[in-house]
Amino acid sequence: MRSGIDVECREVGLRDGLQIQETFFTTVGKIKWLTLEVEAGMPEVEACSFVPPKLLPQFADAIEVVAAALKTKGSIISALAPNLRGAKDAFASGIHKLNYVTSVSESHNMANVRRTVDESVEDFRKIVELRNATPGAENIILAAGLSTALGCTIEGQVSEDAVMRLAARFVEAGADELMVADTVGYANPQQVKGMFRKVIEEFEPAIPIGAHFHDTRGLGLANAFAALEAGCRRFDASLAGLGGCPFAPNATGNIVMDDLVFLMEGAGMKTGVDLDKLVAIREIIAQNLPNETLSGMYAKAGAPKGFTPASSIAAE
Amino acid sequence: MRSGIDVECREVGLRDGLQIQETFFTTVGKIKWLTLEVEAGMPEVEACSFVPPKLLPQFADAIEVVAAALKTKGSIISALAPNLRGAKDAFASGIHKLNYVTSVSESHNMANVRRTVDESVEDFRKIVELRNATPGAENIILAAGLSTALGCTIEGQVSEDAVMRLAARFVEAGADELMVADTVGYANPQQVKGMFRKVIEEFEPAIPIGAHFHDTRGLGLANAFAALEAGCRRFDASLAGLGGCPFAPNATGNIVMDDLVFLMEGAGMKTGVDLDKLVAIREIIAQNLPNETLSGMYAKAGAPKGFTPASSIAAE
Repeated sequence: MRSGIDVECREVGLRDGLQIQETFFTTVGKIKWLTLEVEAGMPEVEACSFVPPKLLPQFADAIEVVAAALKTKGSIISALAPNLRGAKDAFASGIHKLNYVTSVSESHNMANVRRTVDESVEDFRKIVELRNATPGAENIILAAGLSTALGCTIEGQVSEDAVMRLAARFVEAGADELMVADTVGYANPQQVKGMFRKVIEEFEPAIPIGAHFHDTRGLGLANAFAALEAGCRRFDASLAGLGGCPFAPNATGNIVMDDLVFLMEGAGMKTGVDLDKLVAIREIIAQNLPNETLSGMYAKAGAPKGFTPASSIAAE
Repeated sequence: MRSGIDVECREVGLRDGLQIQETFFTTVGKIKWLTLEVEAGMPEVEACSFVPPKLLPQFADAIEVVAAALKTKGSIISALAPNLRGAKDAFASGIHKLNYVTSVSESHNMANVRRTVDESVEDFRKIVELRNATPGAENIILAAGLSTALGCTIEGQVSEDAVMRLAARFVEAGADELMVADTVGYANPQQVKGMFRKVIEEFEPAIPIGAHFHDTRGLGLANAFAALEAGCRRFDASLAGLGGCPFAPNATGNIVMDDLVFLMEGAGMKTGVDLDKLVAIREIIAQNLPNETLSGMYAKAGAPKGFTPASSIAAE
């Protein structure tokens, strides 16, 4: 984690937020969004997904966006790749970190990436091998995401054991990080606390654990707080709450980045992010997606009187 | 607390939700709302505020609404009274419980009820005396609410010490219950946890502690979870998140009752409330306030597949 911060908020809006957007978010707009967010102090930005443009035209400009992102300073630039082919392109782009996602529940994985969980793990193993064999790629961080880890729209409840088993398989295969995701917005904070305690106890500090919540049923930030209490220090979120999952009906939106940073900063956890600058960037989303309703309560209500973000307090 | 439940959710929408509504919510609509909510298992309903109809025409039907509420079975029927005069009317109406509210911050109390905090405490003392001296009123529960306990739009931060001192004064004056309120939606879950631990340790079990959160900056349900973790078992909320405070700009809405019940039931805490029946009652609000945007994510997204509310699990 970047020095001087207590908790890492990670912008995933440019990937998770845009992947089901039918409106093409201009390349200039994407670059402006991520550049300003890096300048606001965001420690990590997921810039795009490396998928065939035929499948997701939204990411047809992936190489250009990543190239621009890599010109900014101070943030980890990541991208998603759903398979070996995408990983190859991602490595060539020069990203710092690759995110790979597999659903814990078989049927959701099949619906999402048309592979069994076994095949997904094997594919990840090949991505690790490719990374290790590609000159210049050796330092790229490989993060394995466990989707539907807190519930599945097809299978319902997902057991902690299934999550722990798949996590262990990814670590064995060479994952540098794990990300536990409530892909479909099913999680309850009590459940989150138990799950994250277990995963963190088992894998940290060797393998950092990230959290990925959606606010589908209103509990997204309660879940983030529960994960924080369980020791989690890495959180995905999306500016203005953009996002969703094509296979999760009504799963509208990642947790809102601006509200998450407000939560963390108020809880005394330095994010390194300037809230005022962050909120101002919402305007770029509004301009590029004029028909999208932007989420976020902090942006609407403003800071409490006398609010002092943890990041604004000088270190001893 | 009613036997068989672990946590008490209290409907305050008919009072806090309606007090700044300019549209008159029909008496028939109010009675239908509260009657159906009692039937859905709601253990406590705040039916109205006893204030001069000239000031708040919304509550001109207070006596009629309370009379209808008292015909339902199984729930505590409460009402707010801002002063001795209102308390007298409230006692005469036959309610089970009286809620009285004072801001911890002087200037907010002055703006809200035009009295110093000292005067408010003295007024409460007279309400206790009146209750004790009124035949048939002896069993009416007197709850003292501490507004702006987690921050104030006029004074900014409010200290824990100030909250503890005012709480002690109300208990000394004869309060049967206390309610700690984030009236203006300033609270952070970390702060909530510390505050509720302190208040609960000091006053429970002799004096039950309730929590009252607004979702102004998106942290309402995170705050509710934090209070739950601190041991709080009584939560105010408003169906569809109706509400606000006339002196708190943009303080739009109590936490959403339906989402709160979903949180609690998913956390294994029995509320006694039937979520399906609860969600159906939103329609009455929609009919009576056609121009109001109803909040609530659970109602929009529905139950997670395989979701088992704690209250649906038979006791051993």
